[in-house]
Amino acid sequence: MGPRATVIGSLQALAMHPNLEIQLHGPHDALEAELESLPKRLSGYRPRLVLQHAPRVISQAMRAANALREADGSSMLSAIASVRDGHVHACVSAGNTGALMGLARRELGTVTGIARPAISTAVPTQGGGQCYLLDLGGNVDVQARHLMDFARMGAVMARVIDGLAMPRVALLNIGVEANKGVPSVREADERLREIMASDRRGFTFDYIGYLEGDGIFSGAADVVVCDGFVGNAVLKASEGLATMLMSRLQETFEAHLTTRVVRAMARPALLRLKRRLDPVRYNGASLLGLAGIVVKSHGGADAKGFAYAISRAVREIDRDLPSHLARELSAASCPEPSIHSAARRTDRVDSGLASDAQSDDSHP
Amino acid sequence: MGPRATVIGSLQALAMHPNLEIQLHGPHDALEAELESLPKRLSGYRPRLVLQHAPRVISQAMRAANALREADGSSMLSAIASVRDGHVHACVSAGNTGALMGLARRELGTVTGIARPAISTAVPTQGGGQCYLLDLGGNVDVQARHLMDFARMGAVMARVIDGLAMPRVALLNIGVEANKGVPSVREADERLREIMASDRRGFTFDYIGYLEGDGIFSGAADVVVCDGFVGNAVLKASEGLATMLMSRLQETFEAHLTTRVVRAMARPALLRLKRRLDPVRYNGASLLGLAGIVVKSHGGADAKGFAYAISRAVREIDRDLPSHLARELSAASCPEPSIHSAARRTDRVDSGLASDAQSDDSHP
Repeated sequence: MGPRATVIGSLQALAMHPNLEIQLHGPHDALEAELESLPKRLSGYRPRLVLQHAPRVISQAMRAANALREADGSSMLSAIASVRDGHVHACVSAGNTGALMGLARRELGTVTGIARPAISTAVPTQGGGQCYLLDLGGNVDVQARHLMDFARMGAVMARVIDGLAMPRVALLNIGVEANKGVPSVREADERLREIMASDRRGFTFDYIGYLEGDGIFSGAADVVVCDGFVGNAVLKASEGLATMLMSRLQETFEAHLTTRVVRAMARPALLRLKRRLDPVRYNGASLLGLAGIVVKSHGGADAKGFAYAISRAVREIDRDLPSHLARELSAASCPEPSIHSAARRTDRVDSGLASDAQSDDSHP
Repeated sequence: MGPRATVIGSLQALAMHPNLEIQLHGPHDALEAELESLPKRLSGYRPRLVLQHAPRVISQAMRAANALREADGSSMLSAIASVRDGHVHACVSAGNTGALMGLARRELGTVTGIARPAISTAVPTQGGGQCYLLDLGGNVDVQARHLMDFARMGAVMARVIDGLAMPRVALLNIGVEANKGVPSVREADERLREIMASDRRGFTFDYIGYLEGDGIFSGAADVVVCDGFVGNAVLKASEGLATMLMSRLQETFEAHLTTRVVRAMARPALLRLKRRLDPVRYNGASLLGLAGIVVKSHGGADAKGFAYAISRAVREIDRDLPSHLARELSAASCPEPSIHSAARRTDRVDSGLASDAQSDDSHP
């Protein structure tokens, strides 16, 4: 996907949210060129789209450490700085995930009490629900306290964004017996059990213990917590499997539903299904624990996917997710200090948002 | 699943393999009771099924260490001992995975040069192929040399069992850039690259580098290597997702293909698809690196699943997988000695096999 998808996706999001204004950060000429060839139905939303010139691009291949050094002039830094400076409420980017996390952390800081921000997205579950999975790649070497932070952040997300009174939170493990798994997971389990058994110290979620991989999609939990390596592998494998299953499904119907009438009647049902079964791709992933709202759009997403990621950011703005995270997480345990305390807000429009026009093809 | 599925599955396997003989290890009375109510079509295969009384059962909840101490009299130990003593060529069990691995390791030993046996199964890929994934739960704390062993064992499997001349082997990672992931994975990558760039020291596979989770199902590799925690989480998540997708698919067709004729015409295609898309559940998982053949049947499998797991064991017997593993792996690097050198064979029948009649509901 190039700047076209982010431009079209931003306009689609403006169509969906009448009180939204979007800054689009990227090379001015390239963005203008895209805007000149707009579909007619979208051109009416153009006035709420503001271009912010940023000539440079942080490539997908760039290491996060290098991106931090070489970010000046990039659309990604420009978009994040706009959140930092209070010009907008949120940043959405389809760019290099590691760079996005690194820059956002440096420029926005973290919520007090959170040592490690995490990446999270919701996957669909049996029965039509969803389950937040985190971390998805930000943290590959985690300790028990980080897993506990992820549990609390995921729970705040499920409660604040989705209105669940008491989200069910589980630790991903390779078995449900107490002796299974790695030390960090076992220790987090022990500490969460202790908290659940005591006064809960303001923990407003229900820790349900270990869950195995199949439980992610079963509807057994609202939040499933794991380290970033495992979460990334599971999420991407799920995307790969869904893609394979959909293509085999199409082959099956092409091979066997030979009459035109059956094919024609089956098609709308199949298309509906395909849309419903691809929410992994169309959910943006939230960077949780930052003192500000940053959403990563799937690199492989089209304009619609980018628009959905923007919608997620708008929901987080509407519900003021960072304040909830700050309030509920600063109460507890984690000793490492945060760099900044909170993102500033503008009240020029209901929701102001910076879209980073660059993209990559990796996820999340 | 109870002993019924293992009894029926064993008889189904006998029907599929005319030169196979099966010992069924378990409580004699329970097995006899199952055999008395056999479907007529299977009773003709009864003469090639030999019962071996073993009164005790190793429960799923039992820790592997306890299982090792308390295995006497169990059907699992009895079946493995039959391989060890050369009465049969292979053992198939749907029981406690950790106990099965622990007992098999103690009784059969490992192939010279292999410090850590691994669990592997094949998942279906785009284009109708398959990909071996390992490890699936045997090893949660691995070093680079273990990952390298897994790579080599998976490659031998793909070559010997599936006839691939030069299997493509990848390391599972959270990105394809050299700086991504955890130290063990990066070190294994470096060492495998060095070997590929030099004389390959008899490595008869093609190391293709890092692969992300979606690559498991894309057909990009024949073998994907990861630690047991990640592999287990990915495999079980895939099973959970496939289950959810199939149930949503059925709902979709029930909701929208309302005319009887379309439903009736779509049904056979859907059933065919369901069978094709569920091979994860119906593939047995091989315990690789043991000096003997042991296959774990999915705990949630029905009789047919158990029969398929037996078929996998028969294929490993026919191709003499342990000898290939011993020959190709003893050449190289790993310093830890094996306990036994090879499983003995009987030549009483083409394939002799011990089925452990107990089962559990976890996998693999």
